[in-house]
Parts: sequence; structure tokens; C-alpha cells
Amino acid sequence: MYGRYTQELGVYAKEEAARLRESGQRRSVSDRSRTLDLLEYDKGRCAKCRICTVRCQKFLISRVGEDWIFLILLGLLMALVSWVVDFCIAICLQAQKWMYGGLDSNVFLQYLAWVTYPVVLITFSAGFTQILAPQAVGSGIPEMKTILRGVVLKEYLTFKTFVAKVIGLTCALGSGMPLGKEGPFVHIASLCAALLSKFMSLFGGIYENESRNIEMLAAACAVGVGCCFAAPIGGVLFSIEVTSTFFAVRNYWRGFFAATFSAFIFRVLAVWNRDEETITALFKTRFRLDFPFDLQELPAFAVIGIASGFGGALFVYLNRLIVQFIRKQKAINRFLMKKRLLYPALVTLLVSTLTFPPGFGQFMAGKLTQKESLVTLLDNRTWAKQGIAEEFDYIGHSQAWKHPQVNVFVTLVLFIVMKFWMSALATTIPVPCGAFMPVFVIGAAFGRLVGESMAAWFPDGIHTDGTIYPIVPGGYAVVGAAALSGAVTHTVSTAVIVFELTGQISHILPVMIAVILANAVAQSLQPSLYDSIIRIKKLPYLPELGWGHHEYYNIRVEDIMVRDVRYITLNCCYRDLHNVLLTGHLKTLALVESAESMILLGSIERAQLQSLLSQQLGRPRRLQYIRERAAAEKKRLSVVSNPGSEDDSQRASQEVRFQVRVTESSFSPTRPVPLKPLKPALKRSSVVERPTEIPTSKTHTHTHTHTQIQIAEWEEKQLDEQVNFNNCKIDPAPFQLVERTSLHKTHTIFSLLGLDHAYVTSIGRLIGVVSLKELRKAIEGSVTVKGVKVRPPLASFRDSGTSSSENEATELHKLWDRHKSMSLPREHTPSESDEKSQ
Amino acid sequence: MYGRYTQELGVYAKEEAARLRESGQRRSVSDRSRTLDLLEYDKGRCAKCRICTVRCQKFLISRVGEDWIFLILLGLLMALVSWVVDFCIAICLQAQKWMYGGLDSNVFLQYLAWVTYPVVLITFSAGFTQILAPQAVGSGIPEMKTILRGVVLKEYLTFKTFVAKVIGLTCALGSGMPLGKEGPFVHIASLCAALLSKFMSLFGGIYENESRNIEMLAAACAVGVGCCFAAPIGGVLFSIEVTSTFFAVRNYWRGFFAATFSAFIFRVLAVWNRDEETITALFKTRFRLDFPFDLQELPAFAVIGIASGFGGALFVYLNRLIVQFIRKQKAINRFLMKKRLLYPALVTLLVSTLTFPPGFGQFMAGKLTQKESLVTLLDNRTWAKQGIAEEFDYIGHSQAWKHPQVNVFVTLVLFIVMKFWMSALATTIPVPCGAFMPVFVIGAAFGRLVGESMAAWFPDGIHTDGTIYPIVPGGYAVVGAAALSGAVTHTVSTAVIVFELTGQISHILPVMIAVILANAVAQSLQPSLYDSIIRIKKLPYLPELGWGHHEYYNIRVEDIMVRDVRYITLNCCYRDLHNVLLTGHLKTLALVESAESMILLGSIERAQLQSLLSQQLGRPRRLQYIRERAAAEKKRLSVVSNPGSEDDSQRASQEVRFQVRVTESSFSPTRPVPLKPLKPALKRSSVVERPTEIPTSKTHTHTHTHTQIQIAEWEEKQLDEQVNFNNCKIDPAPFQLVERTSLHKTHTIFSLLGLDHAYVTSIGRLIGVVSLKELRKAIEGSVTVKGVKVRPPLASFRDSGTSSSENEATELHKLWDRHKSMSLPREHTPSESDEKSQ
Repeated sequence: MYGRYTQELGVYAKEEAARLRESGQRRSVSDRSRTLDLLEYDKGRCAKCRICTVRCQKFLISRVGEDWIFLILLGLLMALVSWVVDFCIAICLQAQKWMYGGLDSNVFLQYLAWVTYPVVLITFSAGFTQILAPQAVGSGIPEMKTILRGVVLKEYLTFKTFVAKVIGLTCALGSGMPLGKEGPFVHIASLCAALLSKFMSLFGGIYENESRNIEMLAAACAVGVGCCFAAPIGGVLFSIEVTSTFFAVRNYWRGFFAATFSAFIFRVLAVWNRDEETITALFKTRFRLDFPFDLQELPAFAVIGIASGFGGALFVYLNRLIVQFIRKQKAINRFLMKKRLLYPALVTLLVSTLTFPPGFGQFMAGKLTQKESLVTLLDNRTWAKQGIAEEFDYIGHSQAWKHPQVNVFVTLVLFIVMKFWMSALATTIPVPCGAFMPVFVIGAAFGRLVGESMAAWFPDGIHTDGTIYPIVPGGYAVVGAAALSGAVTHTVSTAVIVFELTGQISHILPVMIAVILANAVAQSLQPSLYDSIIRIKKLPYLPELGWGHHEYYNIRVEDIMVRDVRYITLNCCYRDLHNVLLTGHLKTLALVESAESMILLGSIERAQLQSLLSQQLGRPRRLQYIRERAAAEKKRLSVVSNPGSEDDSQRASQEVRFQVRVTESSFSPTRPVPLKPLKPALKRSSVVERPTEIPTSKTHTHTHTHTQIQIAEWEEKQLDEQVNFNNCKIDPAPFQLVERTSLHKTHTIFSLLGLDHAYVTSIGRLIGVVSLKELRKAIEGSVTVKGVKVRPPLASFRDSGTSSSENEATELHKLWDRHKSMSLPREHTPSESDEKSQ
Repeated sequence: MYGRYTQELGVYAKEEAARLRESGQRRSVSDRSRTLDLLEYDKGRCAKCRICTVRCQKFLISRVGEDWIFLILLGLLMALVSWVVDFCIAICLQAQKWMYGGLDSNVFLQYLAWVTYPVVLITFSAGFTQILAPQAVGSGIPEMKTILRGVVLKEYLTFKTFVAKVIGLTCALGSGMPLGKEGPFVHIASLCAALLSKFMSLFGGIYENESRNIEMLAAACAVGVGCCFAAPIGGVLFSIEVTSTFFAVRNYWRGFFAATFSAFIFRVLAVWNRDEETITALFKTRFRLDFPFDLQELPAFAVIGIASGFGGALFVYLNRLIVQFIRKQKAINRFLMKKRLLYPALVTLLVSTLTFPPGFGQFMAGKLTQKESLVTLLDNRTWAKQGIAEEFDYIGHSQAWKHPQVNVFVTLVLFIVMKFWMSALATTIPVPCGAFMPVFVIGAAFGRLVGESMAAWFPDGIHTDGTIYPIVPGGYAVVGAAALSGAVTHTVSTAVIVFELTGQISHILPVMIAVILANAVAQSLQPSLYDSIIRIKKLPYLPELGWGHHEYYNIRVEDIMVRDVRYITLNCCYRDLHNVLLTGHLKTLALVESAESMILLGSIERAQLQSLLSQQLGRPRRLQYIRERAAAEKKRLSVVSNPGSEDDSQRASQEVRFQVRVTESSFSPTRPVPLKPLKPALKRSSVVERPTEIPTSKTHTHTHTHTQIQIAEWEEKQLDEQVNFNNCKIDPAPFQLVERTSLHKTHTIFSLLGLDHAYVTSIGRLIGVVSLKELRKAIEGSVTVKGVKVRPPLASFRDSGTSSSENEATELHKLWDRHKSMSLPREHTPSESDEKSQ
């Protein structure tokens, strides 16, 4: 199922990556300079020739740094991947059909073939991704959204994941299960971009910049959607809506450029492969152009929109329910966890049994693949002519919708209902898969149902001006597909995707109306599918503000901030540092001038402080102290001990004692305290040091009491020393807010800058801190948590006697005492200070 | 021509608006509460009934606050405005045709009618806007871009401007000049939104929030484009690209919702008016669907794109050249300024003379209106069949392109060349007008030219697979229109607009390729038309970073910041304040703890400081001092003087002396200094006070030397007092950057948050300031200005011995001395500190 990720891992990964990058850079630079040096001294025949070659190479390399080369390469690569994946999927599906068709003599054998094939493929896909890269499971859009917000997810953009995702996706889709390729393709494109970036950084320097890489990832998301549907514009818009909260218009062209190129190559490959005569849309429709729909049909389109909104919300809810149900049921969970491949196999078995064409599948067009279903649903002919479905001459794949006994309406309803829960269930399988395409098909079926009903109801069309324009149910299918997929993903750009997929834009107004209504309904009921997965996976996120909640303008930062901020002062000693590290679990700590003034100077990462502390009490300093003490002892007693191996081991054993004593001394110098409390503070350093020390401590357990006391004293002295911040990386300008900043503005700034936390200051003094957690709680309304308090919404006239202003007053008095002769502002007009805090 | 606006005016307008808003709010609140109070005490028959009514009213009012109601109203209003404007324009054009057609007996009369009509209309339009609201002149998109950046432009969103813009635009377009309605419609929609917002704020509270208003303005821009072309998606995208640098995806739905509704109503009005049978595209095309174009035609489309890129850049250059030429030529300028209406009349005369159908107009389809030209250009028939243009059966408007003697190619070339400079010239006329539509038509003509050439070159199409698909020159016209308008406006979304305008999306790939190529060429040559106008009008702006300039990652804030920051300290006296105000002209000043520590506490607006200073030395305090002194004098001398009018006038005369003395004393207590230097510092207060004082000073010029000295002493004492910041609004968290922040990130943050300036701090200490000006200079490369220094681009390996680090070191030593026993960090790894400064 879904894994859980903590941000801690991400931070670690980031550090690791930075370290690796630095060393890599140094190496490549030295390599290159060596080559040139060599050439200059090599005065042979071809020296000139070689120098010329090197220069050309250099020029080429500098060109390689250009964005457009990168984007073209990315587009080309993704188009090829998309085409190859499509090709393989087509072969897989053909193979299944061939097997099923060849065994038509025996229904049981046919059933076995029909069922075994997908079960094997899905099981292989699940097993393969599980073994190679479990990060490849699922859609990938939620993770990309998190990554584009600035969070580094470990192992998410590696070559292993790429391989696992591509092969896993091909097998999963080849099985014929109701799964989509669009979400995974966003992930694959991002993987491509990250790998390409890494590859290109072997040549040039610019690929090491982090903000550039983020920009390229954003473009890659557009490419992913673009080359999946051959829909460059829709791809760009969809990826923006799905992955970003604020979008830089200057990145716009990158997405368009790469997605267009990718879509172009993707379609050209089809032409070269003789699948198509020229470049056209993927699911080309042929609705009439002169009179696409009548004004009086608009209510029907609006109904499709509203119903799709409810349907979309239901789909998201159902999907989450299944995941949570399986997680909660411990018995099921334990069983499934043991045999990780059992769950996918069972789900596949169930789904493929139900779609078995001679069985229940005959009532729901079970023998059609996803693509075939979509093509038939978007057909411009009317199935239910004159209310009698049987009269219609079904040809090609449309025949699958016709059942001798059952009305076409029943088939459609069954198809919608069955596919709905099947898709919701199938997308929980731990294979690389998306939910866009299944939802799209269900939406198209729903639209077709409404359209066929309309056609049956008004057999001659509803236009009254003489000319008869019959109703086109295919147009309804287009509207339904856009509306339902828009509702599930909370996007408006599915409308554009639909136009690009069908190659016709004549239904623009109905589609837009339906998509907007579907979004309005779905957004007020449920989060989007991707946000839902983000919450299930517990990825760091910031909820959207939603439609027109005005109270966000009236809640202020002072209402939600945590007032009890952990901080360290510029002149603190190591003991304070140690205590602060023990009590809190924040990733960064505020550095203030002094506890009285509370003037914010910057923030320091927890890891930095930990390394400071371990440096002060660490191995080298201890060794030095022991050496010094030993020298002093030597002088005092004039006893020469045997140097060498025994001395070394004794030193080591003393170190262990130090380690233990450090913990004790941090609480009181006399009372012995268990080892644990130090652990969180010195976690990393102790983990690194212990394994080498424990064996030696077992061999040498005898220590002098005299030494112990001396060492304890030394530790005490060390802890009482003032902290030396020299080698510590301080962020000198952490983001600051003012108490009066509104929740709306805070949300905007957090999402704009991808912040994790921000300090609240008042005239330079630190008075609180707001983190993503507080913000999330304030927005989602669950604000009964300790230290978090929210004013009633719409409390626009603020009374002055609140606790916050009292606090402010007392805090101010402190500052006042310090600068006795001067005065400070007591009141700001809220609106003014708010406006200026930009 | 174009006016000039300074930001100062905007700030003043903002303050005024805030004042008005506050007083208005107070009034309405008290009104409402009074009504309820009255009702509660009114225990008559209908009391219950009335209370119920009030509650219903309240509920309705709270509903009115919802965004979607506002958006629906906005969409409805704009659709009506757009339709009415279109209707009036159509009538105007018909009238011209009717006049021209009726006088076909006499060519001279015909010419007079053809020429007089547009001259009168344009002159009226220019005069009307000039008198009513000169802000209505021009496109309006540059101004909206500036307003959405957070700058308040005075008088830009008033009812007067609305009326002037709508009527001026109708007349200007009714004249048949090559002008567009799309730019002005963005402005009109924004005006509508602002006025609607003002109107709605009479009911509810939420309409007073500034950030909400900005969001609504962004949606209004989308509505403007959407209802102008009936292109909701293209409208939203175009408005985003043209007006924003960073776009909040959460505002996305607003634009879509309002633009869709608006486009829907706009087209429904056409159906109700029996212009159309049902809702379709504005310029519907009927290209074949099954084989829109061949792969081998793509090079031709690419050529259109590249040529359009050059053409677009040339258009922007030409437009700017004309404006600058007319401005520079003083003789012309003086003449034109005197007779403001002469320039529009002359330009109109020239253009309409050249398009006179029996004259030169016959060679360039002069008798067609803009709309008719576009319809004929997008025709799906081929004009140049088999290379012989005469063979084609021209019907309808297409006949205008046919000339008995002249080839259709010559007509097209003449049309393109003439319309090109005409449009560039016409858009400089001071009437409300846009340039999008003329450019669009020129682009379509160019595309048609290429298409006809291709059709002549390959009369049987270039497909070799048996079936013959002839070339569709109309498709080339579509591509050309999108490419040229994209190049002029630097947008990609013209592609989407084209699809929505024509109702066909089959040419998506050629259009996208051409638009991207055109953008690539045009963006590397010239700014967009709107940015060009912004620069001409000297509106505050931030240039874009452009395509792939990597050096921006390597320039750091420390290279461009101004190190000599004006600041005031917390314990400064009024004399320091006065000196600071005299020497600089910054709008805000930094407040630091003390000159030694330089810890940044906040920033104060210049106006605030001025009022502080004038308060300290102002009238009430002086009167008080005089009264006190008089009382003391009275006691000492025991001389009772005559109270009443004479005493008052004497007091006043003394005040004037004070006023003068203040200036002198601020420099040295003995030397007299002219009055001027005080002016900048006390500008507003002195302006307010002087008129009442000067008359009295003339009547009483006799003063005692004794009093003078005493007063000088008093002033000295006043200036030496410490500043009381109690009543001063301090922005407690001005935006801070770190020295190592890259130019790229600085640009991002400035455009994200709409900043005007940011302080550069190092561990809480203020070390510099970066304003929009420095940033602009650094980006545009003109960096030889005093105090601004830029590293050579691509200097990625930074040497440690630069001046900045030395500075840093000395600054650090200062702080060191203060906290002697502790130490501070000396070095940060650049990449780390950079990453964390988010």
C-alpha cells in the first residue's frame, strides 16, 4: 500500500546530495584542467588539431548548457518512452485477445486465459517495483507536487525508480486493468529530467543550480502529460494546476516548448510507424461543425457537470476509504504484508473475473480495452435511435455495447457502476498507475448515457427553426469525460485536454460549463485525488484556501502562532544548547541576541547545533585532554608507563567512560542517570562512535576513581563554556512575519516561497513562530491543539483587550527598561501595518 | 501621446483611499447598528415582520459577499458591454458603407465621405477622452500589469475613465481604422470590477480587502479578453501571460468561471439577436478534419513562425520609434500639443486616404473592414488555384482581394506592408485602442500569402500516398495570425485564442510550433509591445530575466546592493531625523537599534517621520511654549499686557519666526540660512501652515531680540530631544535578503511579493539595501551607475578576497567588540546560506 515518508529523511538526503555534488564538481574540474595541461605540453604533430577539437568540444559543452537543448532532449526522450510504452501495452493487450480468441472452444480454458494473464502481469509488476524501487508505486503526481514545493523526497528521482516505473507501468497497463498512464508519466518525465540534468552536469556547470532544477522539473511535468495525451497545451495547464500553487509565468514557455516538441515527436512516430496518415488527435471525433449543439441542450450539460462533481467526490472518498480500510484491519493487513503480492493478485482476479466477456462482462462491454471503449463512446452516431436501441446498425467495436437481451442503457449503467468501484479499487494496487484515464472513460460513459437519453427523449432534436439537427450523444460523452476527470483532479484544464484529445473544440462552452460546475461541487466536498493521496501518505503539504472563505482575511498570525519559541542566545553556554536540544524536536532553532532583548539574529539548523555540541565533547578534544593530563601526570609522578598498544586501548576505554559521564554530568554531577537522555541530543555522533568503542570497553573495565572525577570536572567545565558559533552555518535572514499579518497573506507567502516555518517578530524581537503545522490546522479548522487558538471566523472588529496585546505590552516594557530614555510604538493601525508588511 | 506617471501620486492616492474607506466603513457600521437598535425598541405591529425583513436582507447581503456572485455579475456586465460596443461599431461601419455606397456617382464626394467620417469619429474620440479622462487613452494592459504588481495608479479605475474608455473605444473602432478592442477591454473589465467592488462594498464588508481586490482584478483581465473574443480559455491564459509574473493557481478558477460565463452570455446575445443560429466560434472555419495538413508542410509553418518573430519585433520597434520621434521633434511636438486633436485627425486622414477603395485601396482590399478581411483570409478555399489566380470564382467579400490587373499575391503583399505601418502608426493615436486585432489580421494575411504560394507551388498537394489532399491556405492564415500576434505580445496563448476564435483545433501542432518559434525570435530582439509601452510611459516595472541567462545565478545581492543605507536609530534625536530627511529621497527609512550594532528593527515611511518632526516643532507645541513663557514672563515682570487680538497676532508672528529659525538652527545656531532647506523635510506641514501665517507676519514685523534668542534656544532644545516613536507606524518586518542571495532568487522574490525594496542583513545587522532600481540595472546590464557594481557574468568560482568579505569582516569585528566574550560565524558556505534564505 502507501508508504510513509518523514521530512527528516528528506533533509538527510539533501545534505548527502550536496556533499556528493560538491565532491563531484571538484573532481570534474580538476580532470578537465589536467586534460588541457597535458595538451599544452604535448607539442606533437596533431597538437593544433587536438586543441581545435578541445575548443569545439568546449563550445559544444557551453551550448549544452542552454535550456532549449535540454528541453528538446527531454521532449525527444519522453516521446520515445511514451511511444515504446504504448507499443508494448498494445502488444500485451493483443496477446491477451489472441489467447482468449484462440481458446473459444472451451469456456473454462478461455476464463483461465482471460484471468491468468492479467494476474501474472500485475503480480510481476508489483513484485518488480517492490524489489527494485518501492518509490515507483502509485501515480507520482502527489510526490511531484511535494518535490516542487521544495521538499526533497529520498530516492524519488533515481535511475532505479525510472526503470521500475517504466517496466512496472507497461506490465500494469498491459494487463487491461482500469488503470491510467498519465500520473506515472508525470513522474517518469520528472525522473527523465532529473537524470538528464545529472548526465548533463558532467559537461557543464549550470546544472548544479537547485532553483533551475526545480524549473526544469516543472517543465518535465508538462512534458509528461503532453506526450501521454499528445496534448501540449492541456498538458502544460494540467501540470500547473496539479503540481503548483504559484506559477512563474517566465517558466511557461519551457513547458510549452518541451511539451509541444514531445507531442510532435510522439505523433510523428505514429505516422512513421504507418499507424496514422498524418498528425492528428489521439481520439479524433467527427461531430458536425455547423451546429454542434443547441442552446436548449445546455441544462443537460449542466446536469452532467453537477452529477460529475458528486461522482468525482465519491470516487476520491471511495479510494481513500479502501486504503484506510485495508490499513486499519490488522488481520488483513498482517496477512497482506506478509505476502505482499497477494493483494494485487486478488484484486486483479476479482476485476478480471467480472469483466470476463462470456460471463458478466457481456453486460458491460467487458471485452473492450480502455482505448476501444473510449473510441466507441466518443462515436458521433447515436446508439439509441428513436428510443429503440436494437434498430441501430452496430459495427466494429460498438458491437460490444449491444446485447441481444439487454437495452443499451442498462449496459451503460452497468459499465459506469462496475468500472467506478473497480477503478477506485484498482488504483490502490501497489503498482505504478494513474487514475486519470479510467475516470475519463467512466465520465465519457456517463456523458454518453445522458446523451443517449436525450436522443431518445428528443428523437428529432430540440431545435424548432425548421431545420432538424439531431442530438449528438458523442458530444455529451466529451463533456462527461472532461467533467468527471476535472472533478476528481480538481482541475479546469481537463477541458483543454479533451479538445486536444478529440481534435474538436466545437463543444467548448458546454465543456467549460460542465467542468466548472463539476469543480465547484467536488471542491466543496472532497480534496482532489492527489491531495487525498498526499494526506494518506503523510507528505508535507499546505491545504488550499478553498473557494471564497472570507474569514481568512480576519484571522491573524498572532492567533495561530506558537508563542513558546525555542531559542538560543548569542552568549549561551553549551549546557543551554544541550538543554534546548533535549526538550524540542524542531528542525531549526532561532538565534536571538539575548534573552532580554529577544532580537532575532538568525536561525540555526538542529544538525549544526548537534555537531557543535559533539565537537565540544567529542573524541579529538577528549584525546587531547587525556594526552595533556597524561603528560601532567607523567611529570607529577615521574612514572613511565609502557607506550603502544596498551596505552591506546586504555585511552579508548577512558573515552567510553567520558561518553557515559557526559550524559550524567549534563543533569547533575553526582547522581548517575541512565544513558538515554543524551541520545536525542547527540544521536548522530553517538551512533557513529559507539560501535568502535563498545568492544574495547569490554576488555578494559578497570578505571581509576581519581580519573573519573577529574573527567567529570572537565566535562562540567566544557559544558559551562560559551558556545563558539564560528564554524556553524547560520541562516542570517529567516523569514519573518508580523503579528498582524492575515492568515490569507501568510498562506500566500508560505506557498509562494515554499516555507516550512516563519518567525513572528515585533520590531526585531522574536515573539512567536508559525510552522506549516499551525497553518494547516488553522486552515482546516481543527484548532483545539495546545498552543493554537483561532478567533471565531468573521470577527472583523478586534477588541483590544486580548491576551496577545497584553503580552505585547509586557514584552515592550522589557525593551523599554533596556533603552530607558526612549519610547517605542505601542499601537499600529492593523490595516496599515498589514499592508506594509509585504 | 503617452503621459508620465510617478509613483508618488500613487502613494498619495492610496493614503487618500485608505482614509476615505475608513471613514466610510465607520459610517456604514454605525448606520446599520442604529437600524437594529431602532427596531428592537419599536414594539409595534410589524416589528416581527420588520426584523424578519432585516434578517433576510442581512442574509442576502452576506451572500452578496460570495465571490461567485461577484464574478457572475462581472461576466454579465462585461458581456453586455462587449455586445453593445460591437453592435454600435457595426452600425458605425454600416453607416460609412452606406454613405460611401450612396455617393457612387461622384468620386470626389465619395472620397470626402470616406475620409471625413473616420476623421470626425477619431477626433471626437480623442477629444472626448482628453476632456473626460486622459487615463483612458491607449491599450490599458500596461497599466493593468503595473496595477497588478501592487502599484496604485491614480484615477485609473474610476467611473469617469470607464465612460471615456467605452465611448472613446466605440467611436475609434467605428471609424474603421486598424485598431483593436482587446487591450481596452482588459482595462474596461478591470474598471467594471473596481466599480462593482466599490458598489458591492456598500452592502458587505469583504470588499474592502486589498488583496482580494487584486485577485478580482486579475479575474477581470481574463474576462476582458474572454468576452472580447468569446474565448474563455485563451482569455484566461492570455491575461495571465500579459499581466502577471507569478500566478496563484488558486485564482485560476475565478478567471475561468467569469470568462466562461461572460463568453457564454456574449454569444447567447448573438443568438437571441438572430445573428447566429446557435453558439459557435466568432470566426468559424471549415477546414477538413481528416487530413488537416501533411508532415512535409511543417517547414513552411516553421518559416511563418520565424518570419512572424522578426515581424513582431519590427512592429514593436516601429511603434516605439514613432512615439519617440514625435516626442523628440520639439517643433512638431509643440504644434501638436497646442492642437491636441490635430495629430489624430492627420493620421486618420492619411490612413483613410490610402485605403480609399477607388484609389490605392483597390490594390489592398481597402473596402473590407477588419472583421471582413479576417473572415476572407481564413476562408478554406484556395484563391491561387493552379498558379492562375484569375480562374477562381470569387464570391462575397473575397471579391475584394481580386483585382482585374493585379495578381492576388501583389494584393496580399501590399495589404501586409501597408497595414503594417498603418497599424503601428494608428496605435499611437491618443484614443482608447489596442493593437492585437490589427496585428492578428496582418498575421493572417501573411499566413495566407505563404499558404497561397505553397498552393501555387504544389497544386496537387505534397502527399504521395495515392490520395490527393490539396493544400489549405486558410490553415496557413490561422498559423500566421497566431504567430504574429504571439510575437508582438510575447505570449504563447494566442494559439489557444486562435483555436477558440476559429472553432477548430486541427492545426494545433503547426500553430504551436509557429507560435513558439515566433516567440523565441521576438523575445530575443525586442520587449513585448506592452513592456515597450510601460517603458515609454515610465511606469515602474521589473524586467523579465529572459531566456536562459545563466549568469543571474552567479550574481549575488552583495554585488548590486547599495551599501550606504540611510537609517535612523532607536535613540536618535530630532536633529538626526531632520538631517536624514534632508539628505535622502527614499520613501522608507530603516530603523536600527543603534549605529554601533546596526541591528535592523524595522522601517518607517518618510511621511511618518516628517509628521513626527513637524509635530515636535509644530504649531500646538509652540503655542504652548509661548503661553508658558508668557506666564513666566508675567510672573517675573509683573507687567500685565493687553490680552486679545493683538496678543494673538503677536503669537502668530512669533510662530513665523520659529518656522524660519528652525531651519537655521538645524544647521548651526548662529549662521542664518535661507528658508529652502527645511522645505523637503517639512513640506506638507509647512504648505498647510504658511498661508494663514504670512498675512499676519506682514502686519507685525517688530520682534524682541531677547525673545528671538530664547526661541532659538527652545528650538535647539527641541531638536536635541530624543525622538518619541510612540505614534509612528513602524513596519516591523521589512523584507530582508542575505548578501549571498543570487540575482535570480532576488528577482523571483521581488516579482513574487511585488517588493519595491529589500534590506540586506547579515545576522540581524543592516548592511545594505536593494531597490527595484538596482535590480533593474543589474538585469538590464547598465551597471556603471554609482554604488552599483556587477561581477563579470559566469564568474562562478568566487574568490574570497573581494571587498565585500573585507567589509563583512570589519563589520563583524564591531559586533565582536560589543559581545567580547563570544564569537560569531565568519564564513557561511554560499550555497547553504543561499538555500536557507527562503
